[in-house]
Amino acid sequence: MTSPSISSFFKELTAPDNFQSKKQQLEDFSTRHFQQKNRIVLITSGGTTVPLESRTVRFIDNFSIGRRGATSAEYFLKQGYAVLYLYRHRSLQPFHHRLDKNILDVLTVNRNNGATINVQAPFVESLAPVVQQYHLYHDSGMLCQVDFTTLDEYLLLLRAACEALRHFDKSALVYLAAAVSDFYIPAAQLPEHKIQSSNGKLQLSLEMTPKLLKPLVKDWVPNAFTVSFKLETDPEIMIAKAKGALETYKHQMVIANLLHTRRKEVVMISSDLEERVLLTDDDLDAGKEIEEPLIARLVAIHAETLS
Amino acid sequence: MTSPSISSFFKELTAPDNFQSKKQQLEDFSTRHFQQKNRIVLITSGGTTVPLESRTVRFIDNFSIGRRGATSAEYFLKQGYAVLYLYRHRSLQPFHHRLDKNILDVLTVNRNNGATINVQAPFVESLAPVVQQYHLYHDSGMLCQVDFTTLDEYLLLLRAACEALRHFDKSALVYLAAAVSDFYIPAAQLPEHKIQSSNGKLQLSLEMTPKLLKPLVKDWVPNAFTVSFKLETDPEIMIAKAKGALETYKHQMVIANLLHTRRKEVVMISSDLEERVLLTDDDLDAGKEIEEPLIARLVAIHAETLS
Repeated sequence: MTSPSISSFFKELTAPDNFQSKKQQLEDFSTRHFQQKNRIVLITSGGTTVPLESRTVRFIDNFSIGRRGATSAEYFLKQGYAVLYLYRHRSLQPFHHRLDKNILDVLTVNRNNGATINVQAPFVESLAPVVQQYHLYHDSGMLCQVDFTTLDEYLLLLRAACEALRHFDKSALVYLAAAVSDFYIPAAQLPEHKIQSSNGKLQLSLEMTPKLLKPLVKDWVPNAFTVSFKLETDPEIMIAKAKGALETYKHQMVIANLLHTRRKEVVMISSDLEERVLLTDDDLDAGKEIEEPLIARLVAIHAETLS
Repeated sequence: MTSPSISSFFKELTAPDNFQSKKQQLEDFSTRHFQQKNRIVLITSGGTTVPLESRTVRFIDNFSIGRRGATSAEYFLKQGYAVLYLYRHRSLQPFHHRLDKNILDVLTVNRNNGATINVQAPFVESLAPVVQQYHLYHDSGMLCQVDFTTLDEYLLLLRAACEALRHFDKSALVYLAAAVSDFYIPAAQLPEHKIQSSNGKLQLSLEMTPKLLKPLVKDWVPNAFTVSFKLETDPEIMIAKAKGALETYKHQMVIANLLHTRRKEVVMISSDLEERVLLTDDDLDAGKEIEEPLIARLVAIHAETLS
C-alpha cells in the first residue's frame, strides 16, 4: 500500500494528454516480454522540467542530455534485455545519439537513374553498424520508447511503468538514470500566465519533491533489482550521500558519480559491495564507454540474484 | 557610448571557453559579406539558461526549441540575405529541423557491391530538397551558425555579433527571436556546488536581467533594422506590451504573438504599422509556414528603408 501522502501527491499531478495511450504501450510491451520470458529493464533518462507558470514559458530544468541512459540502453539490449526506455522529450535516444548531429553534411542527393540520397562513402563504415543495430532492436520489438517532459509526466509514467513490470518479480531491473528535480511548485501555486517582470526581483519558493524511490521500492516493484544514481559535484560527499540513499530507500544499488568525471568513473554501491568502474584516458580516446563494463557487471550481479 | 551600468554588468559575465574563436568567426563572416555587398540578418534563436549553481546541475530555462528562428533563417536565405544564426546549443537549426527526427527509420544499409547507406525510396522526394538546400547555402557560405547555452554566453555573443555588423549600417537586419531570460542570479551569489535538498524548501531570488535592447539600439547597431519579439500567453495584454516595448527601446519593429497561436498568427507593430500576418487552418494543413509571408513582408519593409 502506498502511503496516503504519496497518494494525495499523485492526485495533484497533471497528466499528459496522451497518458492513457502511453500507459497502454507500457503494458503491452511488458506483457509481451513476460510471455516470452525475457528479462526486462526499465531505464529512465534525461532531466525533468518544473514549470514556473501553468501555461509554461519558463521552467526549471536539470542538466542531463540523457547520454548515460541512451548508452546504457544499448548495452542492455546487447545483453538480451527487453528495454523500456522512459526518456525526456528531445533528449538522447539509443542509436540515434550516435549519428553525427550534422547528418546533413554526410548525405548527398544523386540524380542519375532517378533520385537517391546516400551517405557519402567515407562515413558509411562508421554509420552502418548504427543503422543496422537500430533496425535490429526496433524490428525485433526489444525496445519501447516513451517520452516525458515535466516532472508530473515523469512521475505518472514511472509509476505506470513500474506497475506494468510487477509480474516480472525479480527478473525486472529498474535503472533510474533520469535527473529528477528535487524541487517543484505545486500546481495550485502556479500563476496561469507568464510571470510579468516589472517589479525588479523574482522570488521563487519551491517545495521538495517527495522521494518516490520509497514507494517504488516498497510498493510498486518490491522484488525488482532497483538501481538509482547519485550525481554530485563535490567529491567529499559523494560516497556518503550514496550510502545514505541506500540506507533510506533499501533498494539494491546506488551508482555514484561526479559531474565532471562521470564518463570515466562510477562507483557501484550496494549493501555488500563498493566497486569502482574506471576507464583510462587511453580507453576514452579509443572510444570505449564506461557503460559497457558497468552494464556487464550489473547484468552479472542481477543474474546472481535470479539463480 | 554604453552606459556605465551596462558596462559593469558585462564585466561580471562568464564568457564561454571558446569566446574568442566564435567572435572571430562572426567578424570574418560579416567582413566577407560586407565586401560582397550582401544584405545581412542576425537571427537569435532558442532559449537561454540561467544556472542555479556555478558548476551547473540545475538551471532555469525558457520554453523555446527555436522553430521560429530556424524557419525564419531559411526564408531569409531564400531572399538572398547572409544569415548569422546565433542559436541555443541543441535547439533547432535551419534545414536540420526538417529531417524526420527518426532519420534512422528511413536509412537502410545495402551490402551489394560494397556497403552503401541509402534513404529509402518513399522518403527521397521529401528529403531531397532539404539535403540540397542545406548544401547550397552552406557551401556558398551564406549561413554562419554560432551557438550559446547560458544567458551570459548569449549576451556576450549578441554584443560581439552586433559589433561585427556595425559597418552594414542600414542594410543589417537584427531579428531577435531568442527567448531570453528576464531574470538571472548574479555570479557572485551562486553556490559552487549542487544545492543540497535537505531543509525542505528552496528559496530562489533572481534579479532582473538588464534590457540589452536599449544599448543594442542606441549604441551597438544604431542604424540597423531591429526586430524584437513579444511572446505572451494573455491575449489581453499582448498588443499593449508590444507597443510599450517599441516606445521604450525606439527600435523598428515588434512582432507580437501568443504562445498557443504563434504558428498561425503574428502581428507586426512599428511606429506607423500594425499588420496582422495570418495562416488559415487549411494553410497549416497544407504545410504552409507563417514565416514565409512574415519574412517576405519584413524584407520588403527593410528594402523600403534602404531606397
